Amino acid sequence: MDEALRETTKKTARMLFHTLKNGTGFETWKKFDKDLAREVISQTQRELCAVASLTVLNRTNEVHAHIHAALNVGATRQEVAEVIFQQVTYGGMPVVVEALDVFRRVLEERGEWEA
Amino acid sequence: MDEALRETTKKTARMLFHTLKNGTGFETWKKFDKDLAREVISQTQRELCAVASLTVLNRTNEVHAHIHAALNVGATRQEVAEVIFQQVTYGGMPVVVEALDVFRRVLEERGEWEA
Amino acid sequence: MDEALRETTKKTARMLFHTLKNGTGFETWKKFDKDLAREVISQTQRELCAVASLTVLNRTNEVHAHIHAALNVGATRQEVAEVIFQQVTYGGMPVVVEALDVFRRVLEERGEWEA
Amino acid sequence: MDEALRETTKKTARMLFHTLKNGTGFETWKKFDKDLAREVISQTQRELCAVASLTVLNRTNEVHAHIHAALNVGATRQEVAEVIFQQVTYGGMPVVVEALDVFRRVLEERGEWEA
Amino acid sequence: MDEALRETTKKTARMLFHTLKNGTGFETWKKFDKDLAREVISQTQRELCAVASLTVLNRTNEVHAHIHAALNVGATRQEVAEVIFQQVTYGGMPVVVEALDVFRRVLEERGEWEA
Amino acid sequence: MDEALRETTKKTARMLFHTLKNGTGFETWKKFDKDLAREVISQTQRELCAVASLTVLNRTNEVHAHIHAALNVGATRQEVAEVIFQQVTYGGMPVVVEALDVFRRVLEERGEWEA
Repeated sequence: MDEALRETTKKTARMLFHTLKNGTGFETWKKFDKDLAREVISQTQRELCAVASLTVLNRTNEVHAHIHAALNVGATRQEVAEVIFQQVTYGGMPVVVEALDVFRRVLEERGEWEA
Repeated sequence: MDEALRETTKKTARMLFHTLKNGTGFETWKKFDKDLAREVISQTQRELCAVASLTVLNRTNEVHAHIHAALNVGATRQEVAEVIFQQVTYGGMPVVVEALDVFRRVLEERGEWEA
Repeated sequence: MDEALRETTKKTARMLFHTLKNGTGFETWKKFDKDLAREVISQTQRELCAVASLTVLNRTNEVHAHIHAALNVGATRQEVAEVIFQQVTYGGMPVVVEALDVFRRVLEERGEWEA
Repeated sequence: MDEALRETTKKTARMLFHTLKNGTGFETWKKFDKDLAREVISQTQRELCAVASLTVLNRTNEVHAHIHAALNVGATRQEVAEVIFQQVTYGGMPVVVEALDVFRRVLEERGEWEA
Repeated sequence: MDEALRETTKKTARMLFHTLKNGTGFETWKKFDKDLAREVISQTQRELCAVASLTVLNRTNEVHAHIHAALNVGATRQEVAEVIFQQVTYGGMPVVVEALDVFRRVLEERGEWEA
Repeated sequence: MDEALRETTKKTARMLFHTLKNGTGFETWKKFDKDLAREVISQTQRELCAVASLTVLNRTNEVHAHIHAALNVGATRQEVAEVIFQQVTYGGMPVVVEALDVFRRVLEERGEWEA
């Protein structure tokens, strides 16, 4: 990565993940995804796709990080919920229930959950 | 489903899948997805998320159907490719290579592939 | 395995898989499942559970073998179909569609499929 | 679902899951499984198949719920154990060990575990 | 298993897993792996392959046991790390991050972790 | 990648995959694995670990490529078979049967299979 790209990536990463408490996760992660700066699809689109595939794979830690990221780049709660619900068709119900549980936890962390 | 919803769903299904040769697949499929008519996220967004999760699950028949659908509702080739490439981070390289192979086949079927 | 158990297992295997054309698959397989002769659950129950888990794992070759086996030990077509359909909740729709496709193929092989 | 079916489903759900402490899980779940009232296979058969596929998918929360359900509709401890053990052939040993651990926990919750 | 083989297996098991606190896990496990005594590949090779496949399957309990085992039979920390990192290509980044987390925990348990 | 590393990688790739008919697969692949030149573990070790994880993931195209690679860098047939068999414990029997089938095909392609 040249310097300009690195700078863009760093800024993008900050935008995506600044609400995460344990920031170091990204340090590991960015080694594997050099394309944060690319713009073929919008950041919102990209993050909703990440939520989709991480939900069906049942990677709950990553679902947690990318729901934060999706909300940070402007996705609405309704959009995140819809994408998670959509996955029941592809990956079954248990992974959706677990992703919804993570979603609730994310909203609590952001002070946006009302019981 | 009431009558109006059924009609909307049918029209949506035709829009999404009219380029598929063996149309009967949808007949089975629609039983499981009653929400084609919903509009919380755009059809493009929805189809790109389907491509994302079906790629990481390595469900190649369904990747095939939903790449068609994504292109039919206005996603560009670049967007589809980007979403598939993005999945290498979440699901590994082999599933991405297989999805790209399906993608090439879809483009051939649509007469949009140049070797 | 002592001699008596081996004999029971062999007879059980013949009962389960005699309709399979390529009999050698079982030769590999039996090395890993020494408990064919056990009777805690009925053979029908056992084979329907095999169909359930092999469907969600998307192991289509094995789904094929165990649908044959289930029918050979007395499961009805309705029971096999029901168990496959049930899996949509746990494993999603694509694996169910593929298992149903295998099911149709099994019925054709047995001369029990009417279009 | 018409009213009679809804009523049957509700009664079935109560029978299956009344031993579960956090009853709300079912509220989400029932949205995806409208067929609790169907009778092609027995409730015992259905629950043992659920244990089979959820074990190989390693969905431990759902394994927990459906072992409870299986025992509530009359499956014996021996049958549940047998179905879990059977899965080693299809899904490998680690998922079986985790399901057996959940099984032990269920028996403790029901006061039926002797160390 | 004859007596000599059983003895070898037992010794091998002790060598592999003596650093594990809850030794009973192996009791279940050894039922499924009668070949600990075989020598076609070295114990180090075998354990590194176990780490590889358990990482991509995201079976963290077993990753934990087999990283211990790998180190116990002479694999270096660098080799274990390399095998885990290699899996990003095959199974994606989330499973690698989780395996690395387990690896750190194993090193802490052995008093070989420096922050 | 600097020039020296690129050269080493290219040479390594040729060594690993020169027996593969459709050489272009590697072109896609190498984009995701920049570390072919690294030497923490031997090429044989690395390829056997690849066979292990690709077997349990049931990625048969990649199993095919990496069995070729393993044999090309000096792994014996016995070692490859042993690693595949080992996976039955972790990933179940169906994926092992399919990997053994691929293995037989590889040996046929190399003229090393005797019926």
